Amino acid sequence: MPNSEPASLLELFNSIATQGELVRSLKAGNASKDEIDSAVKMLVSLKMSYKAAAGEDYKADCPPGNPAPTSNHGPDATEAEEDFVDPWTVQTSSAKGIDYDKLIVRFGSSKIDKELINRIERATGQRPHHFLRRGIFFSHRDMNQVLDAYENKKPFYLYTGRGPSSEAMHVGHLIPFIFTKWLQDVFNVPLVIQMTDDEKYLWKDLTLDQAYSYAVENAKDIIACGFDINKTFIFSDLDYMGQSLTHGFCHVGQAGLELLTSSDPPRLSLPKCCDYRCEPPCPAVMSSGFYKNVVKIQKHVTFNQVKGIFGFTDSDCIGKISFPAIQAAPSFSNSFPQIFRDRTDIQCLIPCAIDQDPYFRMTRDVAPRIGYPKPALLHSTFFPALQGAQTKMSASDPNSSIFLTDTAKQIKTKVNKHAFSGGRDTIEEHRQFGGNCDVDVSFMYLTFFLEDDDKLEQIRKDYTSGAMLTGELKKALIEVLQPLIAEHQARRKEVTDEIVKEFMTPRKLSFDFQ
Amino acid sequence: MPNSEPASLLELFNSIATQGELVRSLKAGNASKDEIDSAVKMLVSLKMSYKAAAGEDYKADCPPGNPAPTSNHGPDATEAEEDFVDPWTVQTSSAKGIDYDKLIVRFGSSKIDKELINRIERATGQRPHHFLRRGIFFSHRDMNQVLDAYENKKPFYLYTGRGPSSEAMHVGHLIPFIFTKWLQDVFNVPLVIQMTDDEKYLWKDLTLDQAYSYAVENAKDIIACGFDINKTFIFSDLDYMGQSLTHGFCHVGQAGLELLTSSDPPRLSLPKCCDYRCEPPCPAVMSSGFYKNVVKIQKHVTFNQVKGIFGFTDSDCIGKISFPAIQAAPSFSNSFPQIFRDRTDIQCLIPCAIDQDPYFRMTRDVAPRIGYPKPALLHSTFFPALQGAQTKMSASDPNSSIFLTDTAKQIKTKVNKHAFSGGRDTIEEHRQFGGNCDVDVSFMYLTFFLEDDDKLEQIRKDYTSGAMLTGELKKALIEVLQPLIAEHQARRKEVTDEIVKEFMTPRKLSFDFQ
Repeated sequence: MPNSEPASLLELFNSIATQGELVRSLKAGNASKDEIDSAVKMLVSLKMSYKAAAGEDYKADCPPGNPAPTSNHGPDATEAEEDFVDPWTVQTSSAKGIDYDKLIVRFGSSKIDKELINRIERATGQRPHHFLRRGIFFSHRDMNQVLDAYENKKPFYLYTGRGPSSEAMHVGHLIPFIFTKWLQDVFNVPLVIQMTDDEKYLWKDLTLDQAYSYAVENAKDIIACGFDINKTFIFSDLDYMGQSLTHGFCHVGQAGLELLTSSDPPRLSLPKCCDYRCEPPCPAVMSSGFYKNVVKIQKHVTFNQVKGIFGFTDSDCIGKISFPAIQAAPSFSNSFPQIFRDRTDIQCLIPCAIDQDPYFRMTRDVAPRIGYPKPALLHSTFFPALQGAQTKMSASDPNSSIFLTDTAKQIKTKVNKHAFSGGRDTIEEHRQFGGNCDVDVSFMYLTFFLEDDDKLEQIRKDYTSGAMLTGELKKALIEVLQPLIAEHQARRKEVTDEIVKEFMTPRKLSFDFQ
Repeated sequence: MPNSEPASLLELFNSIATQGELVRSLKAGNASKDEIDSAVKMLVSLKMSYKAAAGEDYKADCPPGNPAPTSNHGPDATEAEEDFVDPWTVQTSSAKGIDYDKLIVRFGSSKIDKELINRIERATGQRPHHFLRRGIFFSHRDMNQVLDAYENKKPFYLYTGRGPSSEAMHVGHLIPFIFTKWLQDVFNVPLVIQMTDDEKYLWKDLTLDQAYSYAVENAKDIIACGFDINKTFIFSDLDYMGQSLTHGFCHVGQAGLELLTSSDPPRLSLPKCCDYRCEPPCPAVMSSGFYKNVVKIQKHVTFNQVKGIFGFTDSDCIGKISFPAIQAAPSFSNSFPQIFRDRTDIQCLIPCAIDQDPYFRMTRDVAPRIGYPKPALLHSTFFPALQGAQTKMSASDPNSSIFLTDTAKQIKTKVNKHAFSGGRDTIEEHRQFGGNCDVDVSFMYLTFFLEDDDKLEQIRKDYTSGAMLTGELKKALIEVLQPLIAEHQARRKEVTDEIVKEFMTPRKLSFDFQ
């Protein structure tokens, strides 16, 4: 956490932004002169306070810097002026957000350039998703290798995940899932989705039952993104660690196998369970595939390594220290014997926000040492909080984002009241100098959710020139978000317990791996 | 490991002992005077070398001290003159072995005294096992609490285990199992036996498949001790971590339950599987009981704590660091939902060698913080290596003990050739001064395996007085060990794959827990 001084400076900064918004909306709404004057006085007074505290003028596109965390974190922590990114903290001092080009250099990944996007288009015969076209998925590792495999008709699979820290998911949480669904559609591949309820239990003040129930609730929102039930396996770690036996009985030899295959058909538990006949018989190694991979990874990573990668300390619980192996294990196909049988050679492609990369840098380091292929990655930028791109959104602050449970009215109010604006303090200034799309959160949200490139470009031009006012920009966003959330809510309502159950049952998918 | 100097001194010491044995046997066997003279000359020369190297006279009952390990180990490591005991290292400088009274004080456990033994006798109506009568199980934690529960008709269960580091088990490995079988018989309670194949994979240069196959092979030797198949569950960690779902489908709600209970009867896999109908329905919390408990424990133990208890360092792999939670988890009854349903309150009693106590000190520390009862313990002394009580036996040194696969001839040869003797160098001296039972390994072995108290006492008297010669003592041991091992081998031969399979299948035992 940043220390208290800059935090209160940031609060002041945010108050000025809010007050500026108020002034603009009063003016736009034809409020009385008294009302407007009083609001402007307050704004001026806030700006003076800010100057006194910050030692410099308030600038709309330059919020006070948050210092990077000073302890318990990676080697980057000392470079206070650098952005800081790890799975638990994302901090930058720029209202434009993280400098992703620098991050690519620092993380050693590769930029998703025009050439790669074109190659994806050629390979799939589909227009690239706007997340690719607009640089929202901006970085990768070994994506060309995945395309090589795909072009040679070799199988690969997708793996993504979510840490279910609460029931509430916001629109930002959907980004990797929206993109993963697109990947699944255009490549027609199996997908596994890990719900790290064990992680959330270890890191948060939650009971196991709470963490697990959040996993199930979040799974409903994920399913509502439209994943194909015949090609997707969603699992809670707490559950699946004790479920990965599927073919496991075979280890006891032919007799057990016969028992499994002779009954008519053996009903393990649930719909799809009759797929479980071991025909042809599967080898012993397939039992408990997930835990076996977890142990393999845990043998090949030292405390020194996770200390370096994740900033763990001697005071951290041993659950946290060993958890990275659990997030790593789904990168290897034999963690899912029910899908891939005993195949260890099936390439994995992981779409995720770039803050998850440390887990997979570790995974890619371990993979060749335990005889598995390195997973490939596609990294997304962060979805900004309503208050600005300096911080990652927080599911625990209801005003930091648009939640998937928000009503049309809540969406309208939140965007109008909390979305950080790149506009000027007065209509006159705005018309004269134009707004700043680079720091305007409403515009950023539109780049995520307004699919029409032409419309988006028109908005960018109009807002930058000053032809479009902040209120109008916000209205455009509201009109995109309201139906998007409403449709999501309608789809989620159709996700029955039965459907969740089926998605979360270890089972064969509609692909044939021998 | 001790450094090289004392090791070669110990070799010299052992050579003298062997040479002394040779002299005695030559004399006893009426060898030629030349032969005897030459052997005695060699003996004298060895003794002179020893004096030169050690700076003091060779004394049969006082081998050169091994220094305690100097790094990577607990706080005791610096006290070079103290015994050193942790799960991986047992060292003492005394030929009599570890000073167990001191260990009780150091570990903070309680001595198993006459009063407790009498109470066990009253409670069970059975004569106490000779391991109790002879102080082989010498220390305990909360055994009175177990007896309180037992006398109040409250259930408890037994938990013991084995780390399967190789196929070869020696007689020393049987000690906890022989005693556990007696406890199961006299108390009539469920028993779970953990095969820590994951631990051996993490600590040794083994593949997962090797570790698992050792677990299965070792299980056969354990079963051959006579455990009741209806009351005993043996599990490999690598297997069971992915098998503990048993009732797990219920978390998906009533529909899943009905599917489980309606089919006729649902055949999960193996003999006994039809016991798995959830009748009455079991609550959600029962799925993946084992892993859930592992995570709970891992959340409540820091790296600092395992560093202090087990001597782990930053260079250790995260698998080792988190493993103690896996050995701890079977101490809690809801790790076995198939046996105990969702009961968390069933007291656990753990018979084990005292070097395993650190795991359970940690477990007892965590238990109240996660709402579970502390496990009670019964600690045994160490079974001495043939070469003397200074070291724990090693499964990797074939001459360090009697293996369960040894032939009658091998047993005879090993005892005659390698069993450290408390006898004198010559028959004349022996007759005059008598032997020393406190350091004589053959006599120690008899205290473990000769059940007849009167016979044992007679041997002790005769050997101490000099009336019994070393060859005669060894003969007595050989005559006890040969049939014991032969009978074990016969019983093991009857342990079919089917039987192992059943012991290792998660299932209900013949006890009813509601």
